[in-house]
Amino acid sequence: MDQYVLAGDLGGTNLRIAALDRNGRLLYRVEADTPRASDERSIVDVAVGLANRCRQEMGAEPVAFGFAIPAIMAADEGLIFSSPNLPELVGRPLGQALGERLGVDVILENDANAAAIGEHWRGSSSEFATSIFLTLGTGVGGGIILDGKPLRGPDGTAGEIGHSCVEPDGPPCACGSNGCLEQFSSATAIVRMANELKADYPDSKVIGLTRFTAKDVFDLGIAGDRLSVEVFRRVGMYLGIAVGGLINVLNPEAIVIGGGAAAGWDLFIGAMRAEIRKRAFREPAERARILRASLGSDAGIIGAAFLAFAKSG
Amino acid sequence: MDQYVLAGDLGGTNLRIAALDRNGRLLYRVEADTPRASDERSIVDVAVGLANRCRQEMGAEPVAFGFAIPAIMAADEGLIFSSPNLPELVGRPLGQALGERLGVDVILENDANAAAIGEHWRGSSSEFATSIFLTLGTGVGGGIILDGKPLRGPDGTAGEIGHSCVEPDGPPCACGSNGCLEQFSSATAIVRMANELKADYPDSKVIGLTRFTAKDVFDLGIAGDRLSVEVFRRVGMYLGIAVGGLINVLNPEAIVIGGGAAAGWDLFIGAMRAEIRKRAFREPAERARILRASLGSDAGIIGAAFLAFAKSG
Repeated sequence: MDQYVLAGDLGGTNLRIAALDRNGRLLYRVEADTPRASDERSIVDVAVGLANRCRQEMGAEPVAFGFAIPAIMAADEGLIFSSPNLPELVGRPLGQALGERLGVDVILENDANAAAIGEHWRGSSSEFATSIFLTLGTGVGGGIILDGKPLRGPDGTAGEIGHSCVEPDGPPCACGSNGCLEQFSSATAIVRMANELKADYPDSKVIGLTRFTAKDVFDLGIAGDRLSVEVFRRVGMYLGIAVGGLINVLNPEAIVIGGGAAAGWDLFIGAMRAEIRKRAFREPAERARILRASLGSDAGIIGAAFLAFAKSG
Repeated sequence: MDQYVLAGDLGGTNLRIAALDRNGRLLYRVEADTPRASDERSIVDVAVGLANRCRQEMGAEPVAFGFAIPAIMAADEGLIFSSPNLPELVGRPLGQALGERLGVDVILENDANAAAIGEHWRGSSSEFATSIFLTLGTGVGGGIILDGKPLRGPDGTAGEIGHSCVEPDGPPCACGSNGCLEQFSSATAIVRMANELKADYPDSKVIGLTRFTAKDVFDLGIAGDRLSVEVFRRVGMYLGIAVGGLINVLNPEAIVIGGGAAAGWDLFIGAMRAEIRKRAFREPAERARILRASLGSDAGIIGAAFLAFAKSG
């Protein structure tokens, strides 16, 4: 039978592992809850259990294992130096521990970079040599593909567009800065902005909600709620400020937007495009296609599979 | 005798042409006023005159001619599509016209990109594979060297850091946007900000000046004038906002700052470094060296010479 790789994606709620073929096709997939005690040992235990189920199902050994994780790490050493959502991983050799337990080569990658690679391999940006990927979720992640290759940099932070400052006096960010793109264009920011705007929109239906999500704000916006429309206008405006600058600086052929909050597309894309037209030079702005990601929540796994095949030679 | 190239730099006031050897050493240099009628024909006439003086002095033919110009152009076609300071060049095949008159291969390059290449070849960033170059002059120009190679992009705008938005409601910019870095960190911006702050600093010595330059503001700042110190603090703060974001996104090893207003270094570097520490991730911020450019006004010519040698094979 044909060779396959294992690829995983460690999310805040689920840990998913799949077997994929050389075309990036998912052959088999299993998932489990992300362990509450998110230390290295717990994650390795769950991952190994899922990986072994895949192996059993496949009836053969994988050629390598690619693992997309919500952390920043220097690619060469695989040492994790930052992971806001899984702080217990910092400084831990997760890849090495997994490799020893599984007996296969393991390659770790930042989840947003992996998703960028996935979209470039099998998704929206596959026709373009240079693209910028943004994922709008709890935070704003980013990845850059330059001349067909992911840009990582020696510390692995390259592509961290979510922490570009778009409003010098803006709200504080967990990264230690303030006014980061993440504070305006993430699902978390959508809820925060909706709460902040209540005083300005006393008739808004948002006021009747006690607990709500970005999806609720979107649904109200589509139904014409002015507060909600304004929230998404801001999402798009700040995306346009950050992306407009990067269109000048990197001159990419495509911008791909994924993640849960990309579902708000219809309400933010107009403001985003308008801001890019205003802030970027005409030629690169006209060149850069603004596209929705096409692989959904599989982008990271597919990108991790690409890296696993590359690692296996 | 050894091979040499011609290299030129078209500035707002001077057009300079030099002969350089394979080590980037200037062997002979001539200059003339930039023609007032800055159309293609006038520029070609002056450039050809200077180039012929170099040839005569050298007693041999150059292997190619590299020309740094204040314009943005797609590298492949050499067609100029934007040149705020020399609008008459837009749409003109300047390189072709020069090549026909001189009988040598001509390569054009944006002046900030050429300076970035020069500093990477023979200047401050020569030890670093990935660096960002900023030139603080009438405007703010930029160039990026990534893994040893200049980043241009299909439209040639890559590296145009001066038009990244650092203050969404900031002053209008000639590019059509507002709040661009250029509006805070150029020599022009230093004079504008000094005028704007007069009301807040009634005792400032700036108030006594009728016409003044960025250099005058710097001199007053060094002597303790509080308005002038505040102007340069803002120069540094906004440089830090733009560069801090790029440190995350590109993870460079060095940031090199040149141009006339880089002379204000002692008054802006503290605020710039503080802002980078606040806004960029720790690892890439600690990695990125912030350096003064070392080639002065020769950086563009030296970079153009590098490109000319590369073109000649």
